[in-house]
Amino acid sequence: MKLIDGNAIAESIIEELTTQVSQIQGKKPVVAFIRVGDDPASVSYVRKKEKTAQRIGIESRLYLLPEDVSKEALFAQIDSLNADADINGILIQAPLPKHIDETETFNRVLPSKDVDGFNTLNIGKLCQEDDSGFVACTPAGIVELIQRSDIETEGKHVVVLGRSQIVGKPAALLMMRKALPGNATVTVCHSRTQDLPGITRQADILIAAIGRANFVTGDMVKEGVAVIDVGINRVEDSSKKRGYRLVGDVEFDAVAPKASQITPVPGGVGPMTVAMLMHNTLRAFKAAQAG
Amino acid sequence: MKLIDGNAIAESIIEELTTQVSQIQGKKPVVAFIRVGDDPASVSYVRKKEKTAQRIGIESRLYLLPEDVSKEALFAQIDSLNADADINGILIQAPLPKHIDETETFNRVLPSKDVDGFNTLNIGKLCQEDDSGFVACTPAGIVELIQRSDIETEGKHVVVLGRSQIVGKPAALLMMRKALPGNATVTVCHSRTQDLPGITRQADILIAAIGRANFVTGDMVKEGVAVIDVGINRVEDSSKKRGYRLVGDVEFDAVAPKASQITPVPGGVGPMTVAMLMHNTLRAFKAAQAG
Repeated sequence: MKLIDGNAIAESIIEELTTQVSQIQGKKPVVAFIRVGDDPASVSYVRKKEKTAQRIGIESRLYLLPEDVSKEALFAQIDSLNADADINGILIQAPLPKHIDETETFNRVLPSKDVDGFNTLNIGKLCQEDDSGFVACTPAGIVELIQRSDIETEGKHVVVLGRSQIVGKPAALLMMRKALPGNATVTVCHSRTQDLPGITRQADILIAAIGRANFVTGDMVKEGVAVIDVGINRVEDSSKKRGYRLVGDVEFDAVAPKASQITPVPGGVGPMTVAMLMHNTLRAFKAAQAG
Repeated sequence: MKLIDGNAIAESIIEELTTQVSQIQGKKPVVAFIRVGDDPASVSYVRKKEKTAQRIGIESRLYLLPEDVSKEALFAQIDSLNADADINGILIQAPLPKHIDETETFNRVLPSKDVDGFNTLNIGKLCQEDDSGFVACTPAGIVELIQRSDIETEGKHVVVLGRSQIVGKPAALLMMRKALPGNATVTVCHSRTQDLPGITRQADILIAAIGRANFVTGDMVKEGVAVIDVGINRVEDSSKKRGYRLVGDVEFDAVAPKASQITPVPGGVGPMTVAMLMHNTLRAFKAAQAG
């Protein structure tokens, strides 16, 4: 069994991006972060993104809006960043307050600056296999992990557990596209699936994104499966100072011995998302330069 | 085995639409057809659509452009129809001449008038399960056949043969959505799939859209499968005056005895597409009326 080291792979990508950015003459790429309110997790995520941008040489600008911001004020901020030629990418940190519709907000961002890949147009492009769009950072990170771990996808059976808009479906669409990594047979399972173990046991590659701690047990996979565990779940753990530990959707200790390769949680898909955000930002910059 | 009579189901839909249109006070829905060149199949398809529109009470307007029309002239025609508040739906008959990019052309149509559902934005909405978009007529027809034949999808295993942008992928996305008909486990297979019969034999519902005559043989399905055959393939037949006959992707005589329900070819999915186009046009009209 080989551990897929998401931290190390993300680090390689960050280094590649740093090299590329260092070679840019003149104005560097700029990404704008909009954070609404002071949710501690959001504060921490945005800080992490700022730090990674800084390491790479991408300028980031943070726009803070109060929790009770009106939709109009938020949209005015987005419009102003859309119109600002200096800004290459715009990221709106989720979750947004309940009174603001997330889909509508993500669609307010110009598709060409939608480095988060949440825009309906970019999702349509993914479905149409049009590479000019942005792929959301988590599914893009999954594909990158698969590719950089030399996991063969051609003709293989990929089973995706979970059908969310932001992970399950785009990951499935990427795995079935007529390109590599892709060309896989893809099955999407979810809470309604009958005989789930009978299906997951067929997986050459299992992508677990169902959001339930230790859901995939050892008897649900076959020998040699490659496992990408997207889940990040808290389980109580009184031995930890903070009272919990993070586990994936896969029961690691039971599944790992049967797996050819497997991502740990944490340290698997997680670190990849920030790296892919920076990758998308650099792409947006290059596209803007090319006019 | 029950035959799924696409002609009869399409006829029911047309009658329902006729009733609905007859109840509209004042201005009736209008659909615009753009046909480029004189390809005999295109001439015949457009004529069929005109006749069905007329039966329902939907006004159709035909715009004929020469085979060598410039992209600019075609787009100017589309723009003019986009801007015309009288026009509710716009259909551009495919295939287009080689010098004109189809995706770009379909995307020129306003999403709100894209009754063919080929627009990238409408495909994105389908992926996001946003019902405000238009679903392309063939996958929409497949779903309608399944629903009106009382084929249960909840938790069932749907195997889709083919991963095209216009049939396989949207049909897969529709079958996996969190609504009925949907909530199915969905596998997408294609030319690269390993052990295809091992997968198709798992299908509770098989949607064949691979474009190869009689590709699905009797040993590739299990007893009780419901089969939707999207293929329309010509095979030589000297006993026919025209020298060929139409067959599906499924070897009907071998598969039908094992199937609980099955569509014939012709007379299955085919008649549904025009009915769904009219359905979409009426929806576009209602949305325009609602402002």
